[in-house]
Amino acid sequence: MWIFLNDTFVSEDQARISVFDHGFLYGDGVYETLRAYHGEFFLLERHLERLRQSCQLIGMDLPMPEKQLPALLEETLRRNELADAGVRITISRGKGDLGLDPSHCPRPTLVIMAQPFRPYPPSLKKDGVRLEVVEIRRNPISAQSPRIKSLSFLNNILAKQEALRMGGVDAIMLNIEGYVSECPTSNVFFVKDGEIKTPSVECGILEGVTREVVMMLGKEQGMTLHEGRYRAQELLEADECFITNTGMEIMPVSRIGDKRIGKECPGPLTAKLSQLFQENVERFLTPPSEG
Amino acid sequence: MWIFLNDTFVSEDQARISVFDHGFLYGDGVYETLRAYHGEFFLLERHLERLRQSCQLIGMDLPMPEKQLPALLEETLRRNELADAGVRITISRGKGDLGLDPSHCPRPTLVIMAQPFRPYPPSLKKDGVRLEVVEIRRNPISAQSPRIKSLSFLNNILAKQEALRMGGVDAIMLNIEGYVSECPTSNVFFVKDGEIKTPSVECGILEGVTREVVMMLGKEQGMTLHEGRYRAQELLEADECFITNTGMEIMPVSRIGDKRIGKECPGPLTAKLSQLFQENVERFLTPPSEG
Repeated sequence: MWIFLNDTFVSEDQARISVFDHGFLYGDGVYETLRAYHGEFFLLERHLERLRQSCQLIGMDLPMPEKQLPALLEETLRRNELADAGVRITISRGKGDLGLDPSHCPRPTLVIMAQPFRPYPPSLKKDGVRLEVVEIRRNPISAQSPRIKSLSFLNNILAKQEALRMGGVDAIMLNIEGYVSECPTSNVFFVKDGEIKTPSVECGILEGVTREVVMMLGKEQGMTLHEGRYRAQELLEADECFITNTGMEIMPVSRIGDKRIGKECPGPLTAKLSQLFQENVERFLTPPSEG
Repeated sequence: MWIFLNDTFVSEDQARISVFDHGFLYGDGVYETLRAYHGEFFLLERHLERLRQSCQLIGMDLPMPEKQLPALLEETLRRNELADAGVRITISRGKGDLGLDPSHCPRPTLVIMAQPFRPYPPSLKKDGVRLEVVEIRRNPISAQSPRIKSLSFLNNILAKQEALRMGGVDAIMLNIEGYVSECPTSNVFFVKDGEIKTPSVECGILEGVTREVVMMLGKEQGMTLHEGRYRAQELLEADECFITNTGMEIMPVSRIGDKRIGKECPGPLTAKLSQLFQENVERFLTPPSEG
């Protein structure tokens, strides 16, 4: 595996950073995960916009002009001979003396890594996954906004661990007011009486790129979509439930804890949106910048 | 500088970790900072107990038997020819595939680094520091307990940055209920009408080792100490204010924003406690395990 580290491509063994990197010492940095379909990135501009937003929210400059990133991402695919891939851009505050003050770090660390896309087992997309409503609450916007896709991810890890202990594959996290926010690395949707609902940004979520696409596709088809504040009980009583992220696209939820969701899995609107997503992937791909 | 990394001492240049270390990718890990006075560690057992607690709270095992740590810490001092030092133990989840599930990481990463203790400028201890009450709230216990001294430190960094922008040297963070919790890397005390007050653990704080020592010394001297819930306004109207941590010990606070605190800085109880601390340091040192 070839990994871009700061200014050059290195082998996986050489892809090492100082123990004084504030990304390691303090989780001080941000990241973004992108999906490439046959060599073309899905909504590249939207991911780069969010990366820029994350950087701004923690007061960190990109270590290189943003316009250089697309070519670097493509080069990462080429070097690794990948067409269908997951690519992660990590930008940490960089190496610096101990202490929280970011001015200790003159230069951010940039890492770009790509891996072959490993499709989720078809049985999961057919049978759905089991989620758990966990005790761990999502970090509130006032403390550490979920809009920052940051390296300080312990809140999400604690939720994931709790869900795994409970027998689920992932967690539904409530915000501190008790409303549904999101899963540790995905957004959540549910269907009730033919209407599609998803927690609003004010609930403290990362505005997932796939979430936006699903909402756009649903609206184009005349489906009714609401963003709002919802209690866990509404999810438990839903006709359908699914979660979305860049890697899993649309994943049906069959159970929340012991409660089976809906009559069939995937439910009809989940299946319809999954089909629309597959049919529309090409619309959202960014052609390579060269040849 | 010699740094202990996993199983051996390496030079600073060689002290590098994989970009797949979950400490870097996700802030998944914990740390502890200790102070050595002329080669002996201050309340070593208490720090190791807290390290163990942090590990337990994130479901991670120590990468070696805890009883081996004291000798390693001493060896770190010896290798670096240090007597008065700050030592940081970092334990991350270790290298593993992408994804939050800690089971991806077979072995935690252990890093021990030591630096000469750099005394704070005497003028700071004489004149006190300026703090700012910041907008960023402390992570709530229900989301990411401040009792976990974790590598996911962005909440604290955001508060520190905000305070620096406001012209202070550090931040006073309120919890989400609006009560004073702590500073990003220190605990806060104030004095009103001869009584010493500090936020209780329920306010969402790390139980600082220096905080415990200050409370013990104060009580031994018959001072009145309260742990409770306090509004920022009570700090602004205090007769004295100070902050504590392992490195700064007891640091007087002269101003909170534009408001001068008390008539003189340090105030009489702050000065008395600082003197007691200096007189009692020896009591709390752990003799070296050998020689």
